[in-house]
Amino acid sequence: MDSVQLIKHFMEPRSVALVGVPRRTGRGTFNILENLMGAGYKGKPFPVNPNAGEIMGIKAYPTVLDIPEVPDLAVMMLPRQAVPETVKHCAQRGIRAAIVVSDGFDEAGDDEGRRLQRDVERIAGEGGVHLVGPNSLGVVNNYAPFTSTFLPVASERVPVALVSQSGGLFAGFHEFIMGKGLDLGNMCDVGFSDALEYFAHDPDIKVVVLHIEGMKQGRPFFQAARRLAGLKPVLVLKTGRSEAGSRAIASHTGSLTGEDQVYSALARQTGLIRVDSVDDVCDFTKAFLHLPPPKGNRLGILTPSGGAAIMALDVLGHYDFQMARLSADTVGRLQEFWSPWSTPGNPLDMMSPGVMHGYKKMYSTSLQAMLDDPGVDIVLCIAGTPTLKTVKGAIEATGRWEKPVVSWAMGRWDEAFLAQLNAVDYRAVFHTPERALRAMAVVRDFYRRNGLD
Amino acid sequence: MDSVQLIKHFMEPRSVALVGVPRRTGRGTFNILENLMGAGYKGKPFPVNPNAGEIMGIKAYPTVLDIPEVPDLAVMMLPRQAVPETVKHCAQRGIRAAIVVSDGFDEAGDDEGRRLQRDVERIAGEGGVHLVGPNSLGVVNNYAPFTSTFLPVASERVPVALVSQSGGLFAGFHEFIMGKGLDLGNMCDVGFSDALEYFAHDPDIKVVVLHIEGMKQGRPFFQAARRLAGLKPVLVLKTGRSEAGSRAIASHTGSLTGEDQVYSALARQTGLIRVDSVDDVCDFTKAFLHLPPPKGNRLGILTPSGGAAIMALDVLGHYDFQMARLSADTVGRLQEFWSPWSTPGNPLDMMSPGVMHGYKKMYSTSLQAMLDDPGVDIVLCIAGTPTLKTVKGAIEATGRWEKPVVSWAMGRWDEAFLAQLNAVDYRAVFHTPERALRAMAVVRDFYRRNGLD
Repeated sequence: MDSVQLIKHFMEPRSVALVGVPRRTGRGTFNILENLMGAGYKGKPFPVNPNAGEIMGIKAYPTVLDIPEVPDLAVMMLPRQAVPETVKHCAQRGIRAAIVVSDGFDEAGDDEGRRLQRDVERIAGEGGVHLVGPNSLGVVNNYAPFTSTFLPVASERVPVALVSQSGGLFAGFHEFIMGKGLDLGNMCDVGFSDALEYFAHDPDIKVVVLHIEGMKQGRPFFQAARRLAGLKPVLVLKTGRSEAGSRAIASHTGSLTGEDQVYSALARQTGLIRVDSVDDVCDFTKAFLHLPPPKGNRLGILTPSGGAAIMALDVLGHYDFQMARLSADTVGRLQEFWSPWSTPGNPLDMMSPGVMHGYKKMYSTSLQAMLDDPGVDIVLCIAGTPTLKTVKGAIEATGRWEKPVVSWAMGRWDEAFLAQLNAVDYRAVFHTPERALRAMAVVRDFYRRNGLD
Repeated sequence: MDSVQLIKHFMEPRSVALVGVPRRTGRGTFNILENLMGAGYKGKPFPVNPNAGEIMGIKAYPTVLDIPEVPDLAVMMLPRQAVPETVKHCAQRGIRAAIVVSDGFDEAGDDEGRRLQRDVERIAGEGGVHLVGPNSLGVVNNYAPFTSTFLPVASERVPVALVSQSGGLFAGFHEFIMGKGLDLGNMCDVGFSDALEYFAHDPDIKVVVLHIEGMKQGRPFFQAARRLAGLKPVLVLKTGRSEAGSRAIASHTGSLTGEDQVYSALARQTGLIRVDSVDDVCDFTKAFLHLPPPKGNRLGILTPSGGAAIMALDVLGHYDFQMARLSADTVGRLQEFWSPWSTPGNPLDMMSPGVMHGYKKMYSTSLQAMLDDPGVDIVLCIAGTPTLKTVKGAIEATGRWEKPVVSWAMGRWDEAFLAQLNAVDYRAVFHTPERALRAMAVVRDFYRRNGLD
């Protein structure tokens, strides 16, 4: 079974055994079956619970051995002592894929936990059962839909996959919700290389995010990364970089963290995109989803405030951008809106022209002129939050995907603003000029490396 | 007139001449009088417009000389050529303070602009008129209320003052709206030292933010900063750090930017808090408004996810925090909620106990235990966005201002979340663990430096 076939068992099971599902449902019961049916699962669930005839009106079975067909996947949420025998039952029943949600294995720190994990690994290996976990929330797939989690997770179809060693991250980050997620937990079998292979080829997914605490074998992952990192952007958030973090990982997923420098070298050699923080994950994901690759480094800045533009100028050199020189044609088109004693330049400061001619007109006219100017590769649009709709209109009027327009929205990102942002479906908007330009640079560098610009 | 008396003329005028106010009102007219009355100004406005008998039902005067009393302040929004004579009229009428909104002076880059600025400076100096500007939006004071801007600005009473060289920044930043603002523009007279003196003593204001592009004379500011930086937190966002930014400043406010290192040294010597980005302005402001000073560096981490806690562990050493060791009493209180094979530790991972006993109960119990533990100085609370109300309840139940509780909210900061955050009035919540701890460290260091912890 190759990696794509293998992960398909986990991500898109047509039938699933849910072992250890409680009879009770509702708040506080963390009932996997209830969560699964609530997500709209269209396949066949087989609850396994020796004390229940049925759960939620679905027939239950005393053991995995009693299920009348071979499910694609088994999910186990059981006391840790019961896991080895259940894995054995899965092997006997011919089940090829299982998620062990239960914790208390290598990460527990006691001898019994370590012994149980060795038992599970051995039994699964001998029986041909591929495992995700233990100590894993498993899968969220809002496209199938399918989920093995017992916690509520957002159900949106966002073309981003998160492969994590922590199910807690399934909650997503402040500007980033994944449409598909796989928590590898203690990673006793299925690992990052399998997951990467699957998501790199998944047509639903445009950006892959890997949250890596550590791994036991680096080589298969390195080889997969070298082959696949050019197919679509793959962001790597490596944690456990500090000594304190590294020690904590031993008791979280029992992984070996490896040297931090190894991951930097890995990124350089493979084209994986290393990210340092949750903010970067959010910013880069947003940029890859909403910005086309630029043709060059020449930046035009549109601004309602000279002071704000200076903040952008302060950082553009860090990311190898240069200020574009506006063509004579552009200057000519705009001159009529400027005071006689001043010349439209770059940055294009619209404070005064906006007062004389209206901001809406000045944003539209100026953005159009910059997009038409062959000397401008990228537009950084600085706007107050009320101006975003105007910007959106101007972008759409020009054929938005030809040149990237990346925005910094000054002013408060409050409820009203976020509602407006969603309404216009224009999200390449960032909190600071530095973050806007860093994200733009990451997009540029990805396409440049892969010869796609 | 000392600095406090001087700035009072600008921030809290009992009467104001508005020179060059148009007769028309409504969208696109940028009518200062309309904006002022809309803000609820309770003082006396004197519109000056030779072509109007009245504007908005308020009697207008042909020139400043015709106003029947001496207003505290004049605001000029006129073509640049008309400014010198109007300043002369102000001097003749005995007006001591004026804001020149008009642009086209030193920043314009033409000889005429430079000559006009010299004229204005000379006339004002000889006539005893103190000037803000030219090229300034002037003042926003939501407490008075008073405003000289022609652009709509949020009207909330947030105890934060922004002293800026760019009125565009009056829009605020993504998590930060100021309650009082002063745009110094080209800064031909009134400067940062005057403004700092005023806001350092302003009882409405808890945090002062200075956006500095440059200044002509550093010494008065240095002396003011040394005296005042300990009274309340003063954040300095210095822009024009790069060569490109520095060049652009010449055509924005005509300021000399000075060496970047000078500002770092200034911060070290005076206790001003240097910030590098708009994100830092937002984070630090929020932290100073909502977090008490910690008694020490020992951090307790509450988390629903081991993986998330590791991200915090990775950065805490950068900010001189250490992990607290939980007392035997704390461990004893919590042990009953943990699996027999595991011991509550720090980070305190509530994933499994939450499933067994409910997350609400576990957050409350664990937060209370950490707040009661004398070995814990600060709690970092990691929570999914739905959990914040629970956290708020737990904090309030314990007497929230004794120990700082700083939070990282995972999951999306969408409209619903922001509404909830406002509803609970609990905003020491950050986008990433790194930003949470950096902001906490800035608060700690400020109080430690000033002997207030």
